[in-house]
Amino acid sequence: MLDTICTAQSDIVEAYRFVRDRSLKLIAPLSAEDTVVQSMPDVSPTKWHLAHSSWFFEQFLLSSQCGYEPLRPGWQFLFNSYYESVGPRHNRVQRGLLSRPTLAEVIEYRHRVDDDMAPVLDRAASDPELAALINLGLHHEQQHQELMLTDIKHVFSVNPLEPSYQREAPFGLPGHALPMRFVRGSAGIVEIGHHGEGFAFDCETPRHRTLLHPYEMADRPVTNDEFRDFIRDGGYRTPSLWMSEGWARAQAEAWAGPMYWDAQAETEFTLAGRREIDPYAPVCHVSYYEADAYARWAGARLPRESEWEHLTETRVDVDAQLRAANFADAGFLHPQPAQRDEGLLQLFGDVWEWTSSPYVNYPGYKPLPGALGEYNGKFMCGQWVLRGGSCVTPVGHLRASYRNFFYPPDRWQFMGFRLAKDA
Amino acid sequence: MLDTICTAQSDIVEAYRFVRDRSLKLIAPLSAEDTVVQSMPDVSPTKWHLAHSSWFFEQFLLSSQCGYEPLRPGWQFLFNSYYESVGPRHNRVQRGLLSRPTLAEVIEYRHRVDDDMAPVLDRAASDPELAALINLGLHHEQQHQELMLTDIKHVFSVNPLEPSYQREAPFGLPGHALPMRFVRGSAGIVEIGHHGEGFAFDCETPRHRTLLHPYEMADRPVTNDEFRDFIRDGGYRTPSLWMSEGWARAQAEAWAGPMYWDAQAETEFTLAGRREIDPYAPVCHVSYYEADAYARWAGARLPRESEWEHLTETRVDVDAQLRAANFADAGFLHPQPAQRDEGLLQLFGDVWEWTSSPYVNYPGYKPLPGALGEYNGKFMCGQWVLRGGSCVTPVGHLRASYRNFFYPPDRWQFMGFRLAKDA
Amino acid sequence: MLDTICTAQSDIVEAYRFVRDRSLKLIAPLSAEDTVVQSMPDVSPTKWHLAHSSWFFEQFLLSSQCGYEPLRPGWQFLFNSYYESVGPRHNRVQRGLLSRPTLAEVIEYRHRVDDDMAPVLDRAASDPELAALINLGLHHEQQHQELMLTDIKHVFSVNPLEPSYQREAPFGLPGHALPMRFVRGSAGIVEIGHHGEGFAFDCETPRHRTLLHPYEMADRPVTNDEFRDFIRDGGYRTPSLWMSEGWARAQAEAWAGPMYWDAQAETEFTLAGRREIDPYAPVCHVSYYEADAYARWAGARLPRESEWEHLTETRVDVDAQLRAANFADAGFLHPQPAQRDEGLLQLFGDVWEWTSSPYVNYPGYKPLPGALGEYNGKFMCGQWVLRGGSCVTPVGHLRASYRNFFYPPDRWQFMGFRLAKDA
Amino acid sequence: MLDTICTAQSDIVEAYRFVRDRSLKLIAPLSAEDTVVQSMPDVSPTKWHLAHSSWFFEQFLLSSQCGYEPLRPGWQFLFNSYYESVGPRHNRVQRGLLSRPTLAEVIEYRHRVDDDMAPVLDRAASDPELAALINLGLHHEQQHQELMLTDIKHVFSVNPLEPSYQREAPFGLPGHALPMRFVRGSAGIVEIGHHGEGFAFDCETPRHRTLLHPYEMADRPVTNDEFRDFIRDGGYRTPSLWMSEGWARAQAEAWAGPMYWDAQAETEFTLAGRREIDPYAPVCHVSYYEADAYARWAGARLPRESEWEHLTETRVDVDAQLRAANFADAGFLHPQPAQRDEGLLQLFGDVWEWTSSPYVNYPGYKPLPGALGEYNGKFMCGQWVLRGGSCVTPVGHLRASYRNFFYPPDRWQFMGFRLAKDA
Repeated sequence: MLDTICTAQSDIVEAYRFVRDRSLKLIAPLSAEDTVVQSMPDVSPTKWHLAHSSWFFEQFLLSSQCGYEPLRPGWQFLFNSYYESVGPRHNRVQRGLLSRPTLAEVIEYRHRVDDDMAPVLDRAASDPELAALINLGLHHEQQHQELMLTDIKHVFSVNPLEPSYQREAPFGLPGHALPMRFVRGSAGIVEIGHHGEGFAFDCETPRHRTLLHPYEMADRPVTNDEFRDFIRDGGYRTPSLWMSEGWARAQAEAWAGPMYWDAQAETEFTLAGRREIDPYAPVCHVSYYEADAYARWAGARLPRESEWEHLTETRVDVDAQLRAANFADAGFLHPQPAQRDEGLLQLFGDVWEWTSSPYVNYPGYKPLPGALGEYNGKFMCGQWVLRGGSCVTPVGHLRASYRNFFYPPDRWQFMGFRLAKDA
Repeated sequence: MLDTICTAQSDIVEAYRFVRDRSLKLIAPLSAEDTVVQSMPDVSPTKWHLAHSSWFFEQFLLSSQCGYEPLRPGWQFLFNSYYESVGPRHNRVQRGLLSRPTLAEVIEYRHRVDDDMAPVLDRAASDPELAALINLGLHHEQQHQELMLTDIKHVFSVNPLEPSYQREAPFGLPGHALPMRFVRGSAGIVEIGHHGEGFAFDCETPRHRTLLHPYEMADRPVTNDEFRDFIRDGGYRTPSLWMSEGWARAQAEAWAGPMYWDAQAETEFTLAGRREIDPYAPVCHVSYYEADAYARWAGARLPRESEWEHLTETRVDVDAQLRAANFADAGFLHPQPAQRDEGLLQLFGDVWEWTSSPYVNYPGYKPLPGALGEYNGKFMCGQWVLRGGSCVTPVGHLRASYRNFFYPPDRWQFMGFRLAKDA
Repeated sequence: MLDTICTAQSDIVEAYRFVRDRSLKLIAPLSAEDTVVQSMPDVSPTKWHLAHSSWFFEQFLLSSQCGYEPLRPGWQFLFNSYYESVGPRHNRVQRGLLSRPTLAEVIEYRHRVDDDMAPVLDRAASDPELAALINLGLHHEQQHQELMLTDIKHVFSVNPLEPSYQREAPFGLPGHALPMRFVRGSAGIVEIGHHGEGFAFDCETPRHRTLLHPYEMADRPVTNDEFRDFIRDGGYRTPSLWMSEGWARAQAEAWAGPMYWDAQAETEFTLAGRREIDPYAPVCHVSYYEADAYARWAGARLPRESEWEHLTETRVDVDAQLRAANFADAGFLHPQPAQRDEGLLQLFGDVWEWTSSPYVNYPGYKPLPGALGEYNGKFMCGQWVLRGGSCVTPVGHLRASYRNFFYPPDRWQFMGFRLAKDA
Repeated sequence: MLDTICTAQSDIVEAYRFVRDRSLKLIAPLSAEDTVVQSMPDVSPTKWHLAHSSWFFEQFLLSSQCGYEPLRPGWQFLFNSYYESVGPRHNRVQRGLLSRPTLAEVIEYRHRVDDDMAPVLDRAASDPELAALINLGLHHEQQHQELMLTDIKHVFSVNPLEPSYQREAPFGLPGHALPMRFVRGSAGIVEIGHHGEGFAFDCETPRHRTLLHPYEMADRPVTNDEFRDFIRDGGYRTPSLWMSEGWARAQAEAWAGPMYWDAQAETEFTLAGRREIDPYAPVCHVSYYEADAYARWAGARLPRESEWEHLTETRVDVDAQLRAANFADAGFLHPQPAQRDEGLLQLFGDVWEWTSSPYVNYPGYKPLPGALGEYNGKFMCGQWVLRGGSCVTPVGHLRASYRNFFYPPDRWQFMGFRLAKDA
């Protein structure tokens, strides 16, 4: 379904159905109770994700229609995430206090939205602007599909019973020790940013010139085994390796390894429950601070996002990599060891890769008009760019120019990293 | 069923079934989602109450048996409330983070406990000590039945949709303005504390002598209308009426009326949703600070618990009042106006009544031996005694010597008060 | 000077000079910098104590005079402690943020107050009500003199350099192991409360009847050596000995011994710097929770304040004990071992003694009229009574009916305890 | 004295004396009490600045000498700021809890450091590396001289008495309305970073190539009057103008104008006490969030640091501007209106200018070796670059390549901004 999401206006009906159905498939393993809990402020209850991604269509596609009545009074307030222009909203940290609407009511709401969207989808066939807006809603829902998985993993992790999302998780792929090779990129003025064909978020635009200094980038992410060397070598006890605020956070929260790892660095909590750590899989659930400290320890650095994007665009068959990547639809829902031994590996899928680039606007950036301008632009302060996608990203959601962004201490997403060096 | 709970050992099987069934009846109006939420640290999820009150039987009656295996591994940790002697336990403030066990699993656990209790109940017929322990477990469960209602009220109150627990709430009883009359008690040395017949918690013992100074006590609790006079007269803006820490709390949380009242003092949130305030019903959901400030404003004071108990024991037919009181089983689940015009009214039911007595041990007090000694004794610091029971107390749970206790700022229980004076 | 403070109206001029001078003598060992710091919310800077105790005279004796102009504009706001009726005031927790007025300016202000008080003192000779008010101001200042010492001890204790208030501290008195003997009190109805002669705070009144149950009280406070036995026996690791909220606090703050003790229970921080712990001196700087836990461990309990007061009034020569007690003016500024071997020892001085009595009003209690009614009455919720005075209490400040009060977790005052038992 | 600090090794003795003396001159208007207070976590007491800047010389120049003994035991712990490699240190937020060492003791310590530095200064004449280290210590002390002024301003501002640092503040310079003109910079690949001559911090290096997109930059900072237009136009009530976390902070702290302004935007607190706001002076004490929101409101943006540096280096006589700038030594200690009408104005002095550049390392950046590598490098996460210096910066401290950095919500430094635009 990769192409469905990214391309043709004529396929919008099919894409809509595919994406919307996929959200409901994701909750199959969950009880109604599971969909209520907010285990920390960053996490949203599953029920909230289901409602909010439907609210997005109601708000931005249905509510502008003549004669529109809110489908469920009061729900706009509950399921607006952060759109100040749209009106007041429920306090984010209190999402877990809402037992109502129930999961069944939320699902019924989704169906009503879908029913009301039918004529809109029809009109979109001949209205490119409308189609673009629907497409935005679908990519938005895909983002929440990823969050549903990262969030439920956290919800389950704080339960001493350690429930499992995947009752029958597939066996992991076989791995083996691969040397880390560095690939040299071309320096000089290059272009990055979305090239304009197919869907992109506004923050990926405009395509613009940037200056690359001589550099090289690792052919694959850092693995669990490599990260264990850092731990054993006292990485978490050596302040000179860390950014000042990273060190402070690591001390305050007593970090001694990636999130979800046990104290012995032997097992990790996964969506299939507690499992042995695969030494050859990319390390996951580390903060920017940990990635940066590891890189310093290794005598390297994190890549700039411009380096990552340009090298990816010029050195690999992006479509082929996207098709082969370990995304959510592969069913593992966990990073897997690299499966090939040459070229740039695992650029997409498995783990989001922290870069050394603060998330700021590109030269000439213009946010979308109106409330949708709040989608990305207002977050361009204090966060860091990650590239490439993870094992819980929906297939069909990504591009080489895709910019994900989180705060430096965040660890609950499927975050890893790859090294780079000045050349 | 009043007598079932309080009396004969031979009825223990029937009492057990009655109390245990009642817990499940209480959740009939709830969705699975409703049973998950912890809306503030003092509140426990319904699911937790159901499991904990069963854990109590497992821990104190089943686990001591030879060959015992925990019914569900890990659940002892989750559902131990505060018994340090029994072992470690889940952090109280995180009860709302547990989606598992699900409600269905908890109910199934209840049934397994009940099955395993059957032979124990049989043995209790000829073992008074065993019967006493079971009786304690039943009164414990009744306490949690009351908490299930107070807690779900709070859970629903923080939801902007304001859900209702009672889909078809009964009409309230008719009320009318009643003059407040003061009844003079006898001064001198009197006896208070449980007299020894039937069940009592350890904190009600021993019966002991105490000295009463001349006093009189109001014939009924303060009503909503009376409390509105206090508000209108600037009671919440007059620091000289308040205890210092009460004033600080009222300012910090911007109190301007009882909990659950709107800013205009016209409607209140109830278990049947938002309703108009009944002017003649006892004011409810006020803290000790507010009760004490009102009393000072009214030129009166709160009664001492010894005054309340002695006057009740000597002036009314306690059994008759208990039978007639507005307890949970009357179905209102909300305080009602007084229905008679003479004698001491509403001593039981409707609202718990704050006294001016700190909750400390009686002279000669001995806690129960072992872990059950933690039931009451370790809380005798910082809390205040309330007397009389509320509209959500289960019928059959109370006595004249019953001592309830909460912290001075607590308001989410069904708390009101009655005035007293030196005579 | 004992009598000066407590008695004759004619001596008011001398008493005023004595008390006011004493405050300034207390700061002799301090630098200007020392008088600025607020090391925790409960502590006030020395400079603040000096100014506030003068403000008290300005507010309650000077400001009511015709033609009065504030001595220093804005200072009323800064140095009002908690009198809501008098007007708004500076936030208590921010007292340490004020570098101005400087110490020199505060001392100059004191002198101006003293100058303006001269004619008032003259008038007081023939105006008993005025004299009473001045007397209250002097006892108020004495309370702050005690606080100046307890607070500067805390200020110095948080400084890693561990400065000393007493450059040349006197050697401690010699001690030896004394058996603990219990003295039996008389049961039945007795009278407690201030008898009306001389000064007393309103909370000590009215003298009233109370009922004592048979009891006995230890002849001396618990010593450091005895408290070390409690520690060695795992007292701080045994939850069943503790009140629930005491245990929670002890865990949260990792208590393993009295405040100011080192981890090995060998040395303690004193006003003369770090010193070896005297095994025979009363244990000091323990909370109510610790005192109560120790008593439970020892198979005893804390005395009720009525027991303490009645036994003191009927069994010892109060005046003689007051004269012989280790108060601040003895110069030790630290609890000393008992110096006699019979009778009730150390009832006054050395350490304040926690009782098991919540600080509530006596039957018939009436606070002072007006703003001075806020002096004691509004604190009668949540605190516990201590009796007897400490090694930093000014001589001449105490009586048998004196009620001091602090919150259960407080430890920075010179607090110890004595055991009691049901008899 | 501009050249003293930046240049010849032979002048190091004179530079040392000049800088060290200047610190002591800065405290002339202060009482000992003023030097104790820490009014918020970001602020350090004056006494601490004086001791820490001396500790820097002791630690990095004296302690490496053979036979070295700490000048004052325990002070290394107290006055180490953030050098993890050097050893443990006192908790930053508790600096205001230290009354000792007193100011006099700190000054005496400074003199002892100066005495011990004398032979080191002599050796530096023939040891360029040593001279460089001393020079670093002097620039470090200059940074703390600026902080002493910004911090004491905050200390005085939280005091309701509003003390003044400048007893006789000079009249401000006359201002008038100046149109804002935009100066176009040259696009393409340019070089920025320190050119290698004279002193620079490691974060200004290496000089490197960067790509500028067509842009123009305002000839002067935004003024108070212009900022008042933003306020009047609802700038603080319009979320669409703000970064998301800026908006959250502004709401949480109820920002309605720059720090130190009154609610009517008429007066501001200055080092000379409360003064009327000069309409033509640059706005000061605004956060990055406010600067960024203003720029968005004005249809502009903040300049990138590369744009600022390149335009400055190529369009103005930097030395002349540095000589003419309103730095601390001009005595105003407050931003002044622009005094000329053409060219780029107020690039240096008056207010630090927020740029749109996150503070990250330059390509090829290498921190200093050893503990001094912690000086800048570990802060390259989460902060934003400011350029140009302020009215409290010591003369002789600055360069065109100078990078100052603070967190986006910081406002207590003398921070303003200048607009830029894409061209």
